[in-house]
Amino acid sequence: MASAFHTIGLYGKHNDENVSQTLADLSIHLKKRGLQVFRGQSGSGWDSDDSIDLAIVVGGDGTMLHAARELTRHDIPLVGVNLGRLGFLTDIAADDMYPEIDRILEGEFNTEARIMLDLNVVHQDKSIHSGTALNDVVVSKGELARLLEFQTYIDGEFVTSSRGDGVIVATPTGSTAYALSAGGPILHPTIPALTLVPICPHTLSNRPIVLNSDSTITFEIDTVDGEHESAHVSVDGHTKYALTGHERVEVKRAKRTLRLVRPLGHNHYDVLRSKLGWGSEKRPGRC
Amino acid sequence: MASAFHTIGLYGKHNDENVSQTLADLSIHLKKRGLQVFRGQSGSGWDSDDSIDLAIVVGGDGTMLHAARELTRHDIPLVGVNLGRLGFLTDIAADDMYPEIDRILEGEFNTEARIMLDLNVVHQDKSIHSGTALNDVVVSKGELARLLEFQTYIDGEFVTSSRGDGVIVATPTGSTAYALSAGGPILHPTIPALTLVPICPHTLSNRPIVLNSDSTITFEIDTVDGEHESAHVSVDGHTKYALTGHERVEVKRAKRTLRLVRPLGHNHYDVLRSKLGWGSEKRPGRC
Amino acid sequence: MASAFHTIGLYGKHNDENVSQTLADLSIHLKKRGLQVFRGQSGSGWDSDDSIDLAIVVGGDGTMLHAARELTRHDIPLVGVNLGRLGFLTDIAADDMYPEIDRILEGEFNTEARIMLDLNVVHQDKSIHSGTALNDVVVSKGELARLLEFQTYIDGEFVTSSRGDGVIVATPTGSTAYALSAGGPILHPTIPALTLVPICPHTLSNRPIVLNSDSTITFEIDTVDGEHESAHVSVDGHTKYALTGHERVEVKRAKRTLRLVRPLGHNHYDVLRSKLGWGSEKRPGRC
Amino acid sequence: MASAFHTIGLYGKHNDENVSQTLADLSIHLKKRGLQVFRGQSGSGWDSDDSIDLAIVVGGDGTMLHAARELTRHDIPLVGVNLGRLGFLTDIAADDMYPEIDRILEGEFNTEARIMLDLNVVHQDKSIHSGTALNDVVVSKGELARLLEFQTYIDGEFVTSSRGDGVIVATPTGSTAYALSAGGPILHPTIPALTLVPICPHTLSNRPIVLNSDSTITFEIDTVDGEHESAHVSVDGHTKYALTGHERVEVKRAKRTLRLVRPLGHNHYDVLRSKLGWGSEKRPGRC
Repeated sequence: MASAFHTIGLYGKHNDENVSQTLADLSIHLKKRGLQVFRGQSGSGWDSDDSIDLAIVVGGDGTMLHAARELTRHDIPLVGVNLGRLGFLTDIAADDMYPEIDRILEGEFNTEARIMLDLNVVHQDKSIHSGTALNDVVVSKGELARLLEFQTYIDGEFVTSSRGDGVIVATPTGSTAYALSAGGPILHPTIPALTLVPICPHTLSNRPIVLNSDSTITFEIDTVDGEHESAHVSVDGHTKYALTGHERVEVKRAKRTLRLVRPLGHNHYDVLRSKLGWGSEKRPGRC
Repeated sequence: MASAFHTIGLYGKHNDENVSQTLADLSIHLKKRGLQVFRGQSGSGWDSDDSIDLAIVVGGDGTMLHAARELTRHDIPLVGVNLGRLGFLTDIAADDMYPEIDRILEGEFNTEARIMLDLNVVHQDKSIHSGTALNDVVVSKGELARLLEFQTYIDGEFVTSSRGDGVIVATPTGSTAYALSAGGPILHPTIPALTLVPICPHTLSNRPIVLNSDSTITFEIDTVDGEHESAHVSVDGHTKYALTGHERVEVKRAKRTLRLVRPLGHNHYDVLRSKLGWGSEKRPGRC
Repeated sequence: MASAFHTIGLYGKHNDENVSQTLADLSIHLKKRGLQVFRGQSGSGWDSDDSIDLAIVVGGDGTMLHAARELTRHDIPLVGVNLGRLGFLTDIAADDMYPEIDRILEGEFNTEARIMLDLNVVHQDKSIHSGTALNDVVVSKGELARLLEFQTYIDGEFVTSSRGDGVIVATPTGSTAYALSAGGPILHPTIPALTLVPICPHTLSNRPIVLNSDSTITFEIDTVDGEHESAHVSVDGHTKYALTGHERVEVKRAKRTLRLVRPLGHNHYDVLRSKLGWGSEKRPGRC
Repeated sequence: MASAFHTIGLYGKHNDENVSQTLADLSIHLKKRGLQVFRGQSGSGWDSDDSIDLAIVVGGDGTMLHAARELTRHDIPLVGVNLGRLGFLTDIAADDMYPEIDRILEGEFNTEARIMLDLNVVHQDKSIHSGTALNDVVVSKGELARLLEFQTYIDGEFVTSSRGDGVIVATPTGSTAYALSAGGPILHPTIPALTLVPICPHTLSNRPIVLNSDSTITFEIDTVDGEHESAHVSVDGHTKYALTGHERVEVKRAKRTLRLVRPLGHNHYDVLRSKLGWGSEKRPGRC
């Protein structure tokens, strides 16, 4: 069968020896199959970005998040090879890499669309900072602050004023990451929804909310005791941006979605059971 | 303005004196406006069901749940008048009843579509018990059992085997009812999603899951220690049905949705803040 | 070294073949060592109870709970042999049974005192039902009830009125059982404390409370909608007793404690890590 | 009746006009009663500390925490006057100040002993930083870190390695503060126990633990990705100290306890119900 993909981009942390070796091995394997291969640089992607048909990301879920944020503007589908423990996003084990990649190249794959988030920090109606997240946008108290005080609006409607360590806006992809540790629910990857999860809220009834993914979520941060830089906002746990308390934090669904390439037979619940230690099937269906 | 509604059905617990008096007062008020009014009997609805344009339900959220299950097959829109504390579903206070109802009759209202659930208990491929829920379907351990052991399938895919007090499938409407007490998230009423909430699960990582509302959820109950009637299934906390452990419990979205009529200006977050004791707005938007 | 124990009682479910065989093997082994051995009958203990120095319980944590409730009045120390998965109370694996038991007989053991609970159901100032628990006393809604409404008093002081599925009073031993599933904390086994854990409380701020073990906890159950038998009380998940709503449920520390015999080197945190899937040590202490 | 107290110290934020006025009014009132009055300076206490019989603290719970940490070494009992909303520690309302203080001066009071915590940051077996807490000692991830990785030891025994936002060691007093927001239980004020509460733990079964108050709790922080200053430790939300990952954090019960003076009739559960919105008593005891 002719491959659906002709030009492959390889992506990974070059300063990790193990990753670097795997990328080199993959490169040889792919070239043998007659494919054109580019090695990307983290931070810059590839020079010939637009012509790349598939990016193979080697590393863990962290590398995948990085690649997603960086490559999504080029709308390149991603597939993840995991060098360590099974990930939610990187589900090809390094040991099975050649046959699994070959199957994908031969067209035996599914593509999952994953929602991403756009962050804008707005001051006097101008965006002064922006970012894109695959997992989550997190507003959290600064190091000098004991507490974050903020107001939440959804589609312009006031929801609640809150005090606590902060708040998470998570995509379905991010619902099994930080949001889960903070008490949020697990969202099925394909559901068009976002979840809003308070971090250690002072008011015990401030519980996670699940919203339509078309919602625009806005936070206004109260300046506490005149302290500046009392809060931060980050995307996927990275690129923390200090807030002074005079800005508005806006989060909404990004226009582009991530296209995640999966080997056929990938099962979301298998991964959940494995990662979360859930019970295995006792009996085949029998009624 | 001509009313959108010509024939009104009144619904409430007739054996409650307060309800009964309010229904009588409303009846007089509506007839004065030239409307045709029918008084329904709980359990049978009205004789002339199909011609009713709007049902006014007097009572609390419990009466509204009852009305929804009973009237949804006739696709009659409902509006709720609350005689007690503000409800999630019944948001017209008895004191404001005449002007609010009048505004609705004059066309000043919104209609919210609320997902409902169909329950089927299946034995040897035949449905042996069925029901409809506006809030939730709950499978729970029986009185003689210490524990419910069950397997969960979503769209035929195995999710997990679980041990605990039981499991809740809740609609967005039901997400603020029993599911919230069991640790589930709050779903925005209009989101096309369901939530699956374990009740006191033995495995601590068995956390609430949010699913697309088109999902079919199936539970298979393990018979524990040969005990019969070790489990029950109920809809909206009512009509408990004893399971013997040889059946399959199937839950999916009902074909009909409930049409909930709301006075203009109804705000979901106002109700959440009031019912859950959330913080009020500190300052008007200012950035 | 002379054994600290001369007369051994064996305890286990006789109708379980595996248990029965292990008890027979143990009996031979102990008699060879010159010890007097009695086989107890569940429900009656031994005829010559008072002279037994040590009871060896074969089974799982469930059998141990049963033995504790039954034997504690005779103040016989217990040691548990586990035929299945490692338990919190039964920490000698069947495979290591002979050497571990021998070490205990030779005096190499520790004794842990475990708090137990006395339950009294009181009507018109008379106790009409009583029980003893090693894990927990649970008051829960009956099968026909949607909700339990009850008032809690501690040492006669009113604490709160609650609505929900029920309430658990757990000992430190029981804190890793049902109470943990309901959201309660883990109490160190030796702490003189009890925990009061609401089950799916309607009020989200109704959180677990930790009390001095000398506290007397009293529940008064509200009869809901005139329903009788709307609630039950059980000890260690057994012997459910139906409440009519006219009784007072009193729970306090039992006079006797359970004496749990442990092989030297038993480590509570090892068991917690193993049972709850906690992280293992990464590095030896180094600062 | 002769007063139990002759020399009164007044304590409060002098730069708050409202507090300052209340302190001045109190001073006049106390001098009229023939008492000697000193005005303390936050940060230095009083010059003649040792002769003070009672400190009256004006402000909120935050001021009380500050006073407790500062004055406990002089073993002066404290009583709190609250200018705002009822506090857990400051339960005399400003409006009732004169009669309530008078009753206390006339001997109508109870004294509650509250456990405090000693913090030591140890490097190469030397304490390089120390502090005292009435509420809690908190180890948390630094601003540049995504995650704190740490190992917990209790009385030298390894408990678990953890990943998350951090960990709280709370006294019974602190159990209703930050620890409660992080999911910890409520400890009765008089129980000789501490609670160890993980903040947003990665492992969902890492649940709060309740320990004997004589336990020594030690944390070893892993340096993540070679990042320095990846963690902080604070007492009562103040005096954050940056950790480099080469220290050991030790927490144990302080030798001194806080003596909290309470008007007769103070009821802990009344405060809990009021602060947490719990249900009030429905009926007087009736069984």
